[in-house]
Amino acid sequence: MSLDNQAALHRDGAKRPEWTPEDGGAEFASRVMDGVSAEGALLPRAEHPVPKRRELTAADCVSGVLSGSRTILSRAITLVESNLPVHAETSSRVIKEILPHTGKSTRVGITGVPGAGKSTFIDVLGNRLCEAGHKVAVLAVDPSSSVTKGSILGDKTRMERLSRHRNAFIRPSPSGGTLGGVTRKSRETMLLCEAAGYDVILVETVGVGQSEAAVRSMVDFFLLMVITGAGDELQGIKKGVMELADAILINKADGNNALKANTTRAEYDRILHFLRPATEGWETKAHTCSAAAGSGIGEIWGVIENFMKTVKASGVFAERRKQQTLSWVYTMVEDYIKQKFYGCEAVAKERSSVESRVTSGALSATEAASELIGLYEGSLARARTG
Amino acid sequence: MSLDNQAALHRDGAKRPEWTPEDGGAEFASRVMDGVSAEGALLPRAEHPVPKRRELTAADCVSGVLSGSRTILSRAITLVESNLPVHAETSSRVIKEILPHTGKSTRVGITGVPGAGKSTFIDVLGNRLCEAGHKVAVLAVDPSSSVTKGSILGDKTRMERLSRHRNAFIRPSPSGGTLGGVTRKSRETMLLCEAAGYDVILVETVGVGQSEAAVRSMVDFFLLMVITGAGDELQGIKKGVMELADAILINKADGNNALKANTTRAEYDRILHFLRPATEGWETKAHTCSAAAGSGIGEIWGVIENFMKTVKASGVFAERRKQQTLSWVYTMVEDYIKQKFYGCEAVAKERSSVESRVTSGALSATEAASELIGLYEGSLARARTG
Repeated sequence: MSLDNQAALHRDGAKRPEWTPEDGGAEFASRVMDGVSAEGALLPRAEHPVPKRRELTAADCVSGVLSGSRTILSRAITLVESNLPVHAETSSRVIKEILPHTGKSTRVGITGVPGAGKSTFIDVLGNRLCEAGHKVAVLAVDPSSSVTKGSILGDKTRMERLSRHRNAFIRPSPSGGTLGGVTRKSRETMLLCEAAGYDVILVETVGVGQSEAAVRSMVDFFLLMVITGAGDELQGIKKGVMELADAILINKADGNNALKANTTRAEYDRILHFLRPATEGWETKAHTCSAAAGSGIGEIWGVIENFMKTVKASGVFAERRKQQTLSWVYTMVEDYIKQKFYGCEAVAKERSSVESRVTSGALSATEAASELIGLYEGSLARARTG
Repeated sequence: MSLDNQAALHRDGAKRPEWTPEDGGAEFASRVMDGVSAEGALLPRAEHPVPKRRELTAADCVSGVLSGSRTILSRAITLVESNLPVHAETSSRVIKEILPHTGKSTRVGITGVPGAGKSTFIDVLGNRLCEAGHKVAVLAVDPSSSVTKGSILGDKTRMERLSRHRNAFIRPSPSGGTLGGVTRKSRETMLLCEAAGYDVILVETVGVGQSEAAVRSMVDFFLLMVITGAGDELQGIKKGVMELADAILINKADGNNALKANTTRAEYDRILHFLRPATEGWETKAHTCSAAAGSGIGEIWGVIENFMKTVKASGVFAERRKQQTLSWVYTMVEDYIKQKFYGCEAVAKERSSVESRVTSGALSATEAASELIGLYEGSLARARTG
């Protein structure tokens, strides 16, 4: 990271997330976004005092979140993001308590090709919505955030304006490691934000690994951002992602680029005509905007509002929300049992040998599978009896 | 089924599969394809006599299959298709034995929109290849075959010519139920056919559920068949399937339709330009043919041969085969552990109640997941101790 950022960090210690170790150094700069929400939170603290260092009880979290306190929301999120078993029980109690107060927001997923300008767009759209009286929460899903800290630093600077708006709450991706972990945390963060009164949730994906599908599975509307020159840019769109989108937005449609952007929009519409729409009863179309010039922003929000009206009327909305919850349950279950299998010592120890025997043809795939299953069940049996 | 078919069945008992119960009625008509291969098999029987009713030993199967006997191949397939535990051990021994003699064929997957004329195409292409001295095995993957018997009856009549060619071997989809089961059986059937000297394996998918992905995961080249009028036809192509294809073939490019077919080909090429190719280092393109008129058949086979040259030279072929085997192993493992979870009585009993509580908001998704996992592990524990 640049020296300026380090300097900035040390100049303004308040910006460092509360959970940053006292001796934490520059490597925590990427978490400075938490600092922002925590800082915004310094104001309401008076109105809702909580001893900084004391662990929050489930009751503290619930009442604080429902009262709309940013500090408590922020700390409740830190709680659900925690990987410590001791926090798991509290956080699950919190989630259960706030559940009746969730689900009322418009959940929008935003993905895009590199350089499409997602953060600038979110900054502009978010400000418009906040000005119009909405409360906007911006979450990021980035399974790789623990490594690519850059992207979040980028967001921080690009979302400067939004991050300072009192109706906005910005939370970077939890450093969860596995996608499953990140997704669980992001979903529960979304619920917490809804309980805290945020009525628009913007979930940004950095488009690493399977993150688009993960985000699609937690939002109502999925927006794909691109830039002009579809022919080349499309190469940057991952397989199947276009088919997840409820709208494609061509950004940077300004100046000399405006005309090109319109051609690109027509090209996308042509391709979209050939693809199945992501949402039953809704035709995915391409639109243009310029986040920098602030044009087309109201129009795309209009598309989203129109989408919500349509799917709520048709019942697709309720059905999708229901299916999303159920598939979330089974994703967690299956992640757990898979993780238990692959985490099994006996399996982990033999895996590479089995793989090399199967690829060398010494073992049939079926034999290999049963060998691994045998190792797993054997260790289960020993675990019980021993 | 129509009376004619019933009549046909009873007229020609030899066509009924060997494993059809003596008292088996019209409902076995759909298995008449086995009958065909079994009939072709009557000839070689003299050359390699095997008592019809006796169970084959693993050794019988291996020697018979390697000698190229169609009867034994047919019965060996019936063995790997069997769901009886007693057969599992023998069949896995057989597969292990023949393994060194497998992998040398060109594996081609073929899918298509309804009415694209897959079977006619396979009949014509298969005959050409057989005439050219190839040995061609045609397998079908149809997880739903137990219900949609129609499609297989259809194949039977449409592949009449090929089914009578001594270099051809046609095997309908095993009535396996689950996709996992069908896939395992089809993969092992493919290996048996390779061991029996078939150097071209055509795997047809009926495009139900996930069958395209399953077939893509077991073949080298994946062909998507469509007909003119992409604009409308594409609606018939399932999400993401176009992105699995190494070539798109527009069939029925004959007569008044020839011109339209060319326009369609251009349209597809245009769309394909925007999609990522299914195979690294290979550009997926659209082609036309007329299975009925027999035009364009040699050309598409040329494309497939050219593809094989390219991927073998680049090493993509070897790497894909290796990855296919490994992912097959882990698919089997994960199917097994999932099936064990969902098959668990305690889980099955509570599932719907958990689902309704979670959708009603009485339970958080995380709680629901841990409740189900708890039930599962509890029953595991009891199983061990009790």
